[in-house]
Amino acid sequence: MEQHKLMIPGPVDLTPEVLKETGRPPMGHRTPDFDEILTQCWEDLKYVYQTKNDVILITASGTAAMDAAVASTIEEGDEFVCIGSGKFGERFSLIVKSYGGIAKDVPVEWGKTFDVDAVEKVVAKSNAKAITLTHNETSTGVVHDAESIGKIAKEHDCLFILDAITSLGGDEVKTDAWGVDICTGGSQKCLAAPAGLSTVAVSEKAWEVIESNHTKNYYLNLASYRKSLKKNTTPFTPSVNLIYGLSMALKQIREEGLENRIKRHRTLARATRAAARAMNLELFADPGAASNTVTSIKNPEGFTDDGLRGEVKRKFNILMAGGQEHVKGKIFRIGHMGNVRQPELESVISALETVLHDGGHDLEKGAGLAAAREVFKETG
Amino acid sequence: MEQHKLMIPGPVDLTPEVLKETGRPPMGHRTPDFDEILTQCWEDLKYVYQTKNDVILITASGTAAMDAAVASTIEEGDEFVCIGSGKFGERFSLIVKSYGGIAKDVPVEWGKTFDVDAVEKVVAKSNAKAITLTHNETSTGVVHDAESIGKIAKEHDCLFILDAITSLGGDEVKTDAWGVDICTGGSQKCLAAPAGLSTVAVSEKAWEVIESNHTKNYYLNLASYRKSLKKNTTPFTPSVNLIYGLSMALKQIREEGLENRIKRHRTLARATRAAARAMNLELFADPGAASNTVTSIKNPEGFTDDGLRGEVKRKFNILMAGGQEHVKGKIFRIGHMGNVRQPELESVISALETVLHDGGHDLEKGAGLAAAREVFKETG
Repeated sequence: MEQHKLMIPGPVDLTPEVLKETGRPPMGHRTPDFDEILTQCWEDLKYVYQTKNDVILITASGTAAMDAAVASTIEEGDEFVCIGSGKFGERFSLIVKSYGGIAKDVPVEWGKTFDVDAVEKVVAKSNAKAITLTHNETSTGVVHDAESIGKIAKEHDCLFILDAITSLGGDEVKTDAWGVDICTGGSQKCLAAPAGLSTVAVSEKAWEVIESNHTKNYYLNLASYRKSLKKNTTPFTPSVNLIYGLSMALKQIREEGLENRIKRHRTLARATRAAARAMNLELFADPGAASNTVTSIKNPEGFTDDGLRGEVKRKFNILMAGGQEHVKGKIFRIGHMGNVRQPELESVISALETVLHDGGHDLEKGAGLAAAREVFKETG
Repeated sequence: MEQHKLMIPGPVDLTPEVLKETGRPPMGHRTPDFDEILTQCWEDLKYVYQTKNDVILITASGTAAMDAAVASTIEEGDEFVCIGSGKFGERFSLIVKSYGGIAKDVPVEWGKTFDVDAVEKVVAKSNAKAITLTHNETSTGVVHDAESIGKIAKEHDCLFILDAITSLGGDEVKTDAWGVDICTGGSQKCLAAPAGLSTVAVSEKAWEVIESNHTKNYYLNLASYRKSLKKNTTPFTPSVNLIYGLSMALKQIREEGLENRIKRHRTLARATRAAARAMNLELFADPGAASNTVTSIKNPEGFTDDGLRGEVKRKFNILMAGGQEHVKGKIFRIGHMGNVRQPELESVISALETVLHDGGHDLEKGAGLAAAREVFKETG
């Protein structure tokens, strides 16, 4: 089995230090030593979330955190306004319905962002207990304006549930300043830790709802996690090895500095878009709302998904992501999150140039790389 | 931070090979290479479960598998007969109630096993959709006769949900022969893989219920896992690193052979009990139902939990488990599961002897170790 360079929107390649920690012999999970590691993770997560709120750690994938956010606040018949716009934003709607809630969907065309007034209208017309949004939609490569939804939630006195799984630690996520009540994160995205952990930041306003809620879930009941949080522990056995890995990943984020890290991701995104344009490729996401952690590009004419992504994988050992659901085979996606830096991005651009050129796509060889380098040069 | 030898009922110490795999660079989780690792894990798990049924892998702790079993089969108002007898058996009752189900509890004194007729009576009197049981109850050190409950479930045509989290891979779990419809397992117990994965074996009879059920859970809806299983994948991002570790742990179980492994655990349990008796300690669990993966022992007079377990930890770097809930401070527990063999067991017995002797407990020094060795000698 060959190891491919991961240029997908998570899981991402891990640093040697994170890998080493992940493979360390586990300690007892109910010991003062482990409590210390856990509480340090919580503190580091607060820094990344830019929050003073509690941050919960769940041993499970990101979707579990989205599920926990809904399950812990919903009662049968409650109305949740769910902003669509991609596979993950739309997932909230499915979760709400699975608990007997009423999802007031605000559909958004894939690749575009929402119209704030349209969202406001739906919220005003419904008896919304919460508004849900996926901040950075990897299925379309769009980042949404979460701040404006925070304002609507405040005006209409409902909860704001934000899925920041693929932006947290890579792009700006101002949990407190934006008025996010429940904000979810995932370990294997911009945090650059191994997959299998998810995080939830919870505001006091949300805790009030959660603690009086008849939650229809046991493992993902946030109230249990808060009770344990107060005792510096977790309600169920945590994955000690994954928490070792996350702990080191968070240390490395502190060392880089959140501001530098966000700047790096934004530069990578700009460079990717510039390279795509220089290679005569069409971007899928609205230019005004293009994600800083993943770039979605339309498959050029004459290339199947296998003819493009498959060739890059086989010839250059680099894994990019394909399209999902109805854009499957129509777009491909380059993840530039976590530990990706200029060299990794240049490899994928260079590989793309070769495969496109060999397949007869009209492009000037080297133009993509040159355009990316120009962006890196500008930003230092 | 010091590394303690783990003699607790999970998480357990891992082999160097499992640790190495756990810390390997992750591959893409939607690739043929990863699908292959996943399907091999499923096959190996069938071997350990002694089943021809589907086995599901969930990225989450063992409690999530118990939650998934209930959430995927229950509708509001459904009656579930929940056999108590310890912290984990009783947990089923809480899960049932959290989904609006009616738990018909069969309470069993901690340290004892159930009376089959008493269970049968409760089932006969109720409109039971399912019977739940924790096979091996680590909180009390008791292993229950799951086979007899399987017979009752069959007679009354209800589902049999068995939590085998702390017996699977260490003691006999005959999923098919015992008529278990949903059987849960955890990675960090007798399977000797890192914590953070749980497993669920599901019978055809259970799938019929699950697929027509209005599940009140999204992440833990077993129907989604089956749909993905058919495509050799998972519905949500799996923890690639943990699955690497589990994959190696299962390979090592195949190499040892399930029969040998079960025999090893039974010998360890017998040796532990013999040593405890030789050290003038009183066993907590009913002798007829003592667990083969964990031994519960009453704290001897004159010893606090810290005076006994604390001393063993500080002086000998060995971690044992204390009592939980109402037996906290009254019992301690020695986990002998996963990779524990004669040398590890001898270390903890020897440490106990010293601490007990130094604390004034009436025992003949060396008697515990001798009694254990006698058992190992007998069984070869």
